[in-house]
Amino acid sequence: MQPSELPGAIAAQTLLQLRQQAPLVHCLTNDVVQTITANMLLALGASPAMVLEPEEAAQFSAIADALLINIGTLCQQRAEAMLAAIAAARTADTPWVLDPVGVGALDYRSHFARRLLTLQPAAVRGNASEILALAGIVPAGRGVDSGDDSLQALPAARALAKDCGAVVAVTGAVDVITDGIRVWQVDDGHPLMTRVTGTGCALSAVVAACTALPGERLDNVAGACRLMARAGRLTAAWAAGPGSFSSGMLDELYRLCAEDVQ
Amino acid sequence: MQPSELPGAIAAQTLLQLRQQAPLVHCLTNDVVQTITANMLLALGASPAMVLEPEEAAQFSAIADALLINIGTLCQQRAEAMLAAIAAARTADTPWVLDPVGVGALDYRSHFARRLLTLQPAAVRGNASEILALAGIVPAGRGVDSGDDSLQALPAARALAKDCGAVVAVTGAVDVITDGIRVWQVDDGHPLMTRVTGTGCALSAVVAACTALPGERLDNVAGACRLMARAGRLTAAWAAGPGSFSSGMLDELYRLCAEDVQ
Amino acid sequence: MQPSELPGAIAAQTLLQLRQQAPLVHCLTNDVVQTITANMLLALGASPAMVLEPEEAAQFSAIADALLINIGTLCQQRAEAMLAAIAAARTADTPWVLDPVGVGALDYRSHFARRLLTLQPAAVRGNASEILALAGIVPAGRGVDSGDDSLQALPAARALAKDCGAVVAVTGAVDVITDGIRVWQVDDGHPLMTRVTGTGCALSAVVAACTALPGERLDNVAGACRLMARAGRLTAAWAAGPGSFSSGMLDELYRLCAEDVQ
Repeated sequence: MQPSELPGAIAAQTLLQLRQQAPLVHCLTNDVVQTITANMLLALGASPAMVLEPEEAAQFSAIADALLINIGTLCQQRAEAMLAAIAAARTADTPWVLDPVGVGALDYRSHFARRLLTLQPAAVRGNASEILALAGIVPAGRGVDSGDDSLQALPAARALAKDCGAVVAVTGAVDVITDGIRVWQVDDGHPLMTRVTGTGCALSAVVAACTALPGERLDNVAGACRLMARAGRLTAAWAAGPGSFSSGMLDELYRLCAEDVQ
Repeated sequence: MQPSELPGAIAAQTLLQLRQQAPLVHCLTNDVVQTITANMLLALGASPAMVLEPEEAAQFSAIADALLINIGTLCQQRAEAMLAAIAAARTADTPWVLDPVGVGALDYRSHFARRLLTLQPAAVRGNASEILALAGIVPAGRGVDSGDDSLQALPAARALAKDCGAVVAVTGAVDVITDGIRVWQVDDGHPLMTRVTGTGCALSAVVAACTALPGERLDNVAGACRLMARAGRLTAAWAAGPGSFSSGMLDELYRLCAEDVQ
Repeated sequence: MQPSELPGAIAAQTLLQLRQQAPLVHCLTNDVVQTITANMLLALGASPAMVLEPEEAAQFSAIADALLINIGTLCQQRAEAMLAAIAAARTADTPWVLDPVGVGALDYRSHFARRLLTLQPAAVRGNASEILALAGIVPAGRGVDSGDDSLQALPAARALAKDCGAVVAVTGAVDVITDGIRVWQVDDGHPLMTRVTGTGCALSAVVAACTALPGERLDNVAGACRLMARAGRLTAAWAAGPGSFSSGMLDELYRLCAEDVQ
């Protein structure tokens, strides 16, 4: 069965709710992408914060509307803060999202990510290699960029979603988003997004923001993918290269309206 | 008593001195804003450096012209480096500035910030919620963005300035700057500044640079607020959104001249 | 003997090989410049990754095509990861590059950098003050910006290259690149590059990428200097200030073609 393209009306609804609710997103993310992550959330109307000391990370997760866990530059201290934040988030019913950067190629983070999967993430967002690796399939990638195709990873994504009860988003040239049963597809991105560091990581932060919204979680996560892909395509239509793309995509996210995504 | 608007001639004087002296600013700041902080200092003609290992942080504070302490992503190792740097700065008569990001909402940093207040900062720069919290008034904010009004926080800012001997700047839609007796007001910012991460944190770094200048410290700190607010307003006049604003504000700071701020 | 200007054909060859091979560069770099480092590598067609936990850093260095060690925000944990990564790189014959940020002015990093020199770097890229300090000559700089002239540092660079078997690049208004015997010069940069944080650090990452290319290492390292200087000059021709320069240089690197550098 081919997945269906996400209806624009759903993404429009996600956008409106995001602007109205302005969710406060606690981001425990990698060192390379902190700025673009914060700026993309701000551009869309959400509110980012990064709180790293374990004691505070736990206190803040209980206040925040959503928690992002991105293991791109994982180290022991950060891992400790992540576990404290997730525990507090679960107690407070704050949804949390996993971005399993580089899982499969590297052992330390792979073990850590598998442990996190037992802690009931609301959503998981990765590229095809990462989702295949999380599902226990031998990875093809060397680094953080996926050599695999999102649609090929759909069976693994479905299995992962059923196993851990999360919405799983596999992103790439095409995005597929599944809760294990239903599947949405978003086909709207642009290759320039792969020449700017942090677009995938920032998408995971937007996914986290959208898990805090009311309504169907599958729809909201797919909506997040569509908003980012659409802003990327609008920017690529005029950007001269990755520098103007990176800056321009913030402008497009800021101006994005319901009509743009329908 | 209403505070008086800072005369443009004072801000122009601050700008000229900043360009002539090119102060070397040691920034112990949060992980999200390091790049924009360094770039805003460079654009204005100052010289930033970030030195993190406690032993080196102390050695460097004695060489630098000013020290910035921003507790946005405080952790134990960074706290240790901050204390070593402040101790060395005080011995060397290097002025140091506190940016109490998120104080009030989170206990670990609130305790740490109160400890820092006993170490004679030259200036404190925060939003209304943070200044109210430092002054012992129950905070209204959940995160790093202030729900309170700068002018409402003026009595707290005056009390704080008197208590710790620092110039206190409360920034927001309007900025108020006080040494506990005199008060300047700067009314020149733009809401787009709140949609870019790090503009407030970078302002604190510019405040630190300006505490190294000769003349009245109150005037120089208020001058720093005016320079940044003015560059922000000039940029907002043409920026298409937060991406072009962030990049454009660096250009405006670089081109800013005495006439612009008068 | 005056060094000869690098022939454009060599830089063009470096560019073509860089795009074809797309080397995967493991960057252990300073906190301030991680984003611009990743983005400049991506713009040129290389593939960056930052892996920090010592165990993983070692595992990843064996997979990567080159390793960058930048000591700008050195701390004990990072130093440990760097040593593990270098050891694994040497075992796997992965070339590694040293950027000795701030060496000379600060003791902790100076001792560490001298220790690293015994571990056979493929290349060292610094400003004149840093190269003079590494060669044991008393430094003139206070911070990370060099007060010395690249050509004055050439004898020190030659001696350093012979001592540690690395290609040494001294960059500034003019760049000189030597393997201890031959010397290339690149005279193509622009002062605006000194008003944007991380251009030198990102150059070191591009140098690392180019040590993974086939052919003469001296030529490839000098080629890296020329590519970055050329993109900088092309950008400075139209940039309005450091903000548009920073973003624009990514666009120019992305569009750079063999004709541009010849």
